[in-house]
Amino acid sequence: MKLEVVTIGSELLLGQVVDTNAAELGRALAAAGAEVVRHVTVADRPEAIRAAVAESLERTGFVITTGGLGPTRDDMTKPLVAAIFGKPLRLDAAVLRSLEERFRRLGRPMPAVNRTQAEVPEGATVLPNPRGTAPGLWVEDAAGRVVVMLPGVPSEMRGLLAEQVLPRIAQRSPGTVVRSRTVRTAGVAESALAERVGAIEEDIAPLTLAYLPSADGVDLRVTAWGLREAEADRRLSAVATQLRARAGADAYGEDGTDLAAVVLDQLRARGARLVVAESCTGGLLGGRITAVPGASDVFIGGIVAYDNVVKSGTLDVSPELLERHGAVSEQVVSAMAQGVQRQFAVDAALAITGIAGPSGGTAEKPVGTVWMAARLGKEARALKRVVPGDRGEIRARAAQGALDLLRRLIADQR
Amino acid sequence: MKLEVVTIGSELLLGQVVDTNAAELGRALAAAGAEVVRHVTVADRPEAIRAAVAESLERTGFVITTGGLGPTRDDMTKPLVAAIFGKPLRLDAAVLRSLEERFRRLGRPMPAVNRTQAEVPEGATVLPNPRGTAPGLWVEDAAGRVVVMLPGVPSEMRGLLAEQVLPRIAQRSPGTVVRSRTVRTAGVAESALAERVGAIEEDIAPLTLAYLPSADGVDLRVTAWGLREAEADRRLSAVATQLRARAGADAYGEDGTDLAAVVLDQLRARGARLVVAESCTGGLLGGRITAVPGASDVFIGGIVAYDNVVKSGTLDVSPELLERHGAVSEQVVSAMAQGVQRQFAVDAALAITGIAGPSGGTAEKPVGTVWMAARLGKEARALKRVVPGDRGEIRARAAQGALDLLRRLIADQR
Repeated sequence: MKLEVVTIGSELLLGQVVDTNAAELGRALAAAGAEVVRHVTVADRPEAIRAAVAESLERTGFVITTGGLGPTRDDMTKPLVAAIFGKPLRLDAAVLRSLEERFRRLGRPMPAVNRTQAEVPEGATVLPNPRGTAPGLWVEDAAGRVVVMLPGVPSEMRGLLAEQVLPRIAQRSPGTVVRSRTVRTAGVAESALAERVGAIEEDIAPLTLAYLPSADGVDLRVTAWGLREAEADRRLSAVATQLRARAGADAYGEDGTDLAAVVLDQLRARGARLVVAESCTGGLLGGRITAVPGASDVFIGGIVAYDNVVKSGTLDVSPELLERHGAVSEQVVSAMAQGVQRQFAVDAALAITGIAGPSGGTAEKPVGTVWMAARLGKEARALKRVVPGDRGEIRARAAQGALDLLRRLIADQR
Repeated sequence: MKLEVVTIGSELLLGQVVDTNAAELGRALAAAGAEVVRHVTVADRPEAIRAAVAESLERTGFVITTGGLGPTRDDMTKPLVAAIFGKPLRLDAAVLRSLEERFRRLGRPMPAVNRTQAEVPEGATVLPNPRGTAPGLWVEDAAGRVVVMLPGVPSEMRGLLAEQVLPRIAQRSPGTVVRSRTVRTAGVAESALAERVGAIEEDIAPLTLAYLPSADGVDLRVTAWGLREAEADRRLSAVATQLRARAGADAYGEDGTDLAAVVLDQLRARGARLVVAESCTGGLLGGRITAVPGASDVFIGGIVAYDNVVKSGTLDVSPELLERHGAVSEQVVSAMAQGVQRQFAVDAALAITGIAGPSGGTAEKPVGTVWMAARLGKEARALKRVVPGDRGEIRARAAQGALDLLRRLIADQR
């Protein structure tokens, strides 16, 4: 089943609010076997709303809208959709009662403007919205064309979607799903990975493959469109296995797997504990690691050695080393890892030093130069990367790179 | 000037990635006086992309696309747009050189697939992208119809937009702007702030006011719509002054101002240096502070004391204190701040300890309980908050709360 989503609101086009409803609808509908083939956003202007909804209805016969159901003047979705279907608006007594009841519960008089919220297109199904004043509406004509109107408030939209819309959609298209599976890689460039994966697209059709690069690395996302659930899962599983094989040691997990969680699991399995020493990341690596619930049985803490005073004073990096090689060097990052490991007397340590910019770069060490070190027992590795991006991205890539270095060190020790 | 935005990527329709590019484009274009009248998202399917771009071009004559410019097979925007304009793709020698140069700098061989990224529609203007491999492209025909293709990676899109696209658009549409100004507050609830601000909406019309709560606090955003630039700025400035006066000590800055930068400036003005001691935030506070370029003249570093072993061993928090009051207590957070200040012998210190969840809460200390401490010289403050949200939000609120505590301590000392 294919459908289109129309999100309505000037604030969305002006970028004052990020349209999380669209993403949430896409996710939930795909899981229920419905494919969103287009998403359109228009402003709170009657002609724009009317045109967008009518065109989407023309293309797919099924449209979900969000927004424009409030009591104020800029809320006009309902009369416009009613007009598309050629249906008049009628006051719905049950909706009016539940509105009045809601205001009574909140201990406030119901403003007159809210009365318009009890008007529904003739013959429409009212989708009760216990979280807000605007109910959802399901309008369907004899030809089976459907427009579902949902409020724009994310918590209300989400509730109506789960409780009212998805069950009805699942009934219309029993069986098929749109489902994805992701193989996550780190430490390899998109194009190098693509060469390794090769021309797999024809072999896996009708499944599709997308390369999604980010500061975390490159995700390989394969999607099955509109297959029966068991068939989709079987094929996705086979393709994921193929992709993992081709990605080799660069693959660290699937779907939402966080590299920090992978490393914590590796260390937990060995009963090892972890500390960090951070310069340019300033605490981000520790922040990444402790974002994983339950990190506390592996992660002890660390030293943020932003200033060289802390590198020498607390981490025992010799001032001569700092002088001779500079703070961003293999020698210093290795000494940082060794220093923090010794200080806390633990098995595993990570260290990062680099030039995050925007200033501080030189011809020899440009902005983006990052040295990372990992230690497990007496074994140590250091790695230099010159990574792209702005300050935030460079620091995120440094944290991910350090975690990946330790992941590989542990894996190779097995 | 009116235009449409087409964002391309199956991952957007599937909701696996939230489309932040669309919001960012809307914001930046509004500020440049261009109105996004429609935003369309389509999957990585040739027919869907071609139809969406052609329809948008038909409606407004000006389209900006994001995504589908990478080196892999799922990237197909460029040939499709070239086909709409009836122009062949040609290898651009300058783009190829800069691609090869980029790979040389990163110390990697350039994979053959990247060569396709050097192909541009005949006659197109290449918009250099120093942050990535895919340049932006500006294609314009004799009738003045324009399609601007930008990469989907947010940092690359943002850079190209600011440096290449907005200056060209500003030249095309002199005159009115849609412009906002934001007064940022911390440490006050939305409803309390709303009572203080009062019924200002009618006084400021046609400007509009929105309350935007987040983990940073509550932002007050006022927007001027379609006024001439000087008039918009004059009115926004007057309203911002009013709002700051009503928000009082809770206001810490305007627009994109980061509270960490405010605190760094306060400390810099006094020649003071700062250290941190973090438990539940695990390094996030240091990460927040060092996200500010130039933090290094104020921020020295800190201790991530995730485990109590580090609190007592490195921060000198007495084990009896930990035993008697628990790690999340006024006594322990105060001792952490004192310990880290003493260890690094600096003027200013911040400490955080709390229960970020999802587990670890008790009836007395529920998940969300956070103790924060700030020290400046011998003066010290500690503050407890029970904050809402999930693990990530609780930790973000804790970091922001600690910074706000130090901001107020410094301000009161003046």
